[in-house]
Amino acid sequence: MARKPSLTGFPEWLPAERVVEQHVLDTLRRVFELHGFSNIETRAVEPVAQLLRKGEIDKEVYGISRLQDDAASKEDPHALALHFDLTVPFARYVVENAGYLHFPFRRYQMQKVWRGERPQDGRFREFTQADVDIVGEGTLPFRYDVELALVIAEALQALQLGEFRLRVNNRKLSEGFYCGLGVEDTAAVLREIDKLEKIGAEKVAEALIGQGLSREQAEAALALASIRTEDASFVEQVRALGVEHPLLEEGLDELSQVITAAAGAAPGKVVADLSIARGLDYYTGTVYETVLLGHEKLGSICSGGRYESLASNGKRSYPGVGLSIGVSRLISRLLADEVLTASREVPTAVLVALPAAEDWQRAQEVARALRGRGIATEVMATAEKFGKQIRHADRRGIPYVWFLGTDGAGDQVKDIRSGEQVDADAATWAPLAEDLAPQVGPSRADDAPEAR
Amino acid sequence: MARKPSLTGFPEWLPAERVVEQHVLDTLRRVFELHGFSNIETRAVEPVAQLLRKGEIDKEVYGISRLQDDAASKEDPHALALHFDLTVPFARYVVENAGYLHFPFRRYQMQKVWRGERPQDGRFREFTQADVDIVGEGTLPFRYDVELALVIAEALQALQLGEFRLRVNNRKLSEGFYCGLGVEDTAAVLREIDKLEKIGAEKVAEALIGQGLSREQAEAALALASIRTEDASFVEQVRALGVEHPLLEEGLDELSQVITAAAGAAPGKVVADLSIARGLDYYTGTVYETVLLGHEKLGSICSGGRYESLASNGKRSYPGVGLSIGVSRLISRLLADEVLTASREVPTAVLVALPAAEDWQRAQEVARALRGRGIATEVMATAEKFGKQIRHADRRGIPYVWFLGTDGAGDQVKDIRSGEQVDADAATWAPLAEDLAPQVGPSRADDAPEAR
Repeated sequence: MARKPSLTGFPEWLPAERVVEQHVLDTLRRVFELHGFSNIETRAVEPVAQLLRKGEIDKEVYGISRLQDDAASKEDPHALALHFDLTVPFARYVVENAGYLHFPFRRYQMQKVWRGERPQDGRFREFTQADVDIVGEGTLPFRYDVELALVIAEALQALQLGEFRLRVNNRKLSEGFYCGLGVEDTAAVLREIDKLEKIGAEKVAEALIGQGLSREQAEAALALASIRTEDASFVEQVRALGVEHPLLEEGLDELSQVITAAAGAAPGKVVADLSIARGLDYYTGTVYETVLLGHEKLGSICSGGRYESLASNGKRSYPGVGLSIGVSRLISRLLADEVLTASREVPTAVLVALPAAEDWQRAQEVARALRGRGIATEVMATAEKFGKQIRHADRRGIPYVWFLGTDGAGDQVKDIRSGEQVDADAATWAPLAEDLAPQVGPSRADDAPEAR
Repeated sequence: MARKPSLTGFPEWLPAERVVEQHVLDTLRRVFELHGFSNIETRAVEPVAQLLRKGEIDKEVYGISRLQDDAASKEDPHALALHFDLTVPFARYVVENAGYLHFPFRRYQMQKVWRGERPQDGRFREFTQADVDIVGEGTLPFRYDVELALVIAEALQALQLGEFRLRVNNRKLSEGFYCGLGVEDTAAVLREIDKLEKIGAEKVAEALIGQGLSREQAEAALALASIRTEDASFVEQVRALGVEHPLLEEGLDELSQVITAAAGAAPGKVVADLSIARGLDYYTGTVYETVLLGHEKLGSICSGGRYESLASNGKRSYPGVGLSIGVSRLISRLLADEVLTASREVPTAVLVALPAAEDWQRAQEVARALRGRGIATEVMATAEKFGKQIRHADRRGIPYVWFLGTDGAGDQVKDIRSGEQVDADAATWAPLAEDLAPQVGPSRADDAPEAR
């Protein structure tokens, strides 16, 4: 983002930047749909009471109220607010529509969310999330935890962002290990371990001892968190620590399944990382985080896990597994670092030039023929000098200018980059395949966009 | 919408309904991009002061405020509110980014907007609009008014909604005519004529006379408003009314250009209708409305016009021409009347069945091969009886079930609708073209969705 947004925390993209964002969203959509995920959208607002159920995040919520009404208050049971993630609304949607859905229900959802946070680098007040989840009714086979890792690895590979690591752990493994160590408040240990990357092992050790762990217990917990492998060899490393517990065994088995399947499908991309804790309380098994190599400061670009109860309507509970990609944050970084760039800012491949004002109708017919074959085409509105019409195309990155034949001569088309001009028939001519639509990919030095 | 939304005025679609909505949005995107329109999105919020500039719509605006802050007030210069259309934010975006845009700037925008209106049939508090505009810097050739009519006619034809009429008029024509009649407050006459369809000619005549028009003037204004033609013959009909004014001539010429060009490109779809007034003050020339035949009660599904000044930064003004489609309202009706239906609710074309739990990895390999060739594929997570696995596919509308070969036999695939089962290789087999993705189209009696 070269420009500053006029409202801090509410990013807006220029057309060429939006081409990159669209490409990211289209790529995610394609991969998710190839894996059989249905798209849904939920409304932007939820009852305030619903959003504040977990108690801890009220400071981030934007209430809405009609300007001439009294303001929304937390106490008003009818008060509405903007959703701050896609998980809470999805949970409500599942419970509300359970009778119309088929379980396990595979859905993806790509929408804006709002958080009234203090804006800072990469933290927005309005941003797009892309969530992908599989939710069961009553039960959900563990196999889906494995599948989700494969889906996300494939999606991130398709995005061509460069090297990434999907780091996977399992809450049962960590909690079982802490239980085996004789620790009682395992959730407290997880919360401290979650800070490892931020504050370092020494400070975490101190904090754990502050929680009542012995130095040996703290060191064992840290030893567990230091294990990272690209295959199932983490199992032996954990066993070598000499701790035993049935829940630990279950966790080891589950994590092995994820890592082994992923090692075949996406070698090196999906790794066991026993330091991953995820702060949120509702995860109960597999937890995922993703780091983009070279962009570690971005934090996890894609996180999630298994939850035993996404939602419950009293009679029935809905366990699930899913991940969420912080699209705006990712795009913002990709654009700033020119990791992905668009080859042009307009969809247009061909500009039909206008020899004279009265040729407009003829020009429209050529354009119609080209569009009918999937070639995005614009027609000049005024018959300016050809040089000016070519500059019109050039400024927008439109690669071809079409010249209508005059005095019985046939039409011609010019590639304005090479200057090559050839005879052309609107019924048969086609641009180079890579010119058909804006290309988005890793930027190359020789076609970097002009500095602004 | 068979179900009632849990919040009145905030519609949400089931997966099969969302397939229809996606199809509509994808079709609009395709047509707009083929015509060289770039996509942008603007933030959902604007300063309250900006939204209330026109004074008249404050009752419909949703203010937002962080729950622990003081409520948004109209007086607070920093107060924010949700946008109620895409025109006001687009105007701001153009002025703010003018230095980075290329004019004439062709853009389309498809986003949610919010209005705190009393919800009623087809009136939502949250809904999606699709806007398409061309905006110039300083000036904008009239040709774009003609082009926009062609773009919209093509988009509506591509949507296969059935018969529609894009009804076009020109403010210069009407106002010039009223001036020629000797009427002074032409805007007041336009406002009365705008009610014609709602209250009838007699009441409009009374209202016009109440405005100070003579009976002859009122009758002439109504005679003008009764003219409807599919070609430029409206010109002679207007001339026969014996009124003269230079502005009238200009309007007749402009409207002729639109109707003549459209009669060639979309015969019968784009008609001159001299009753079209459009309530909004900012239109200065061409005005458009669209009626879906057989769904007249929906009102105009797509409206817009030419404005001489979308926005201005003091030094420069930005004239434009554009239209807006009320997507949610349209979808809601299309779904209720089953004008468009989806052939299935999931993207999945193939379900790979699981003979035994240990075949899961093999099944994933088949799925990967199929997906690699663009065939959306799911794998069963549990090795239930085949009958149960087939029912799993059937309930979701997945047309094919893949059976892994056992004991050295090759794989087979079954079309579960016909029961036909054939040998298949994941590297070469393909489904019928119409089974590759959910098909959306006019519903046929023989594949109507089950009643819910």
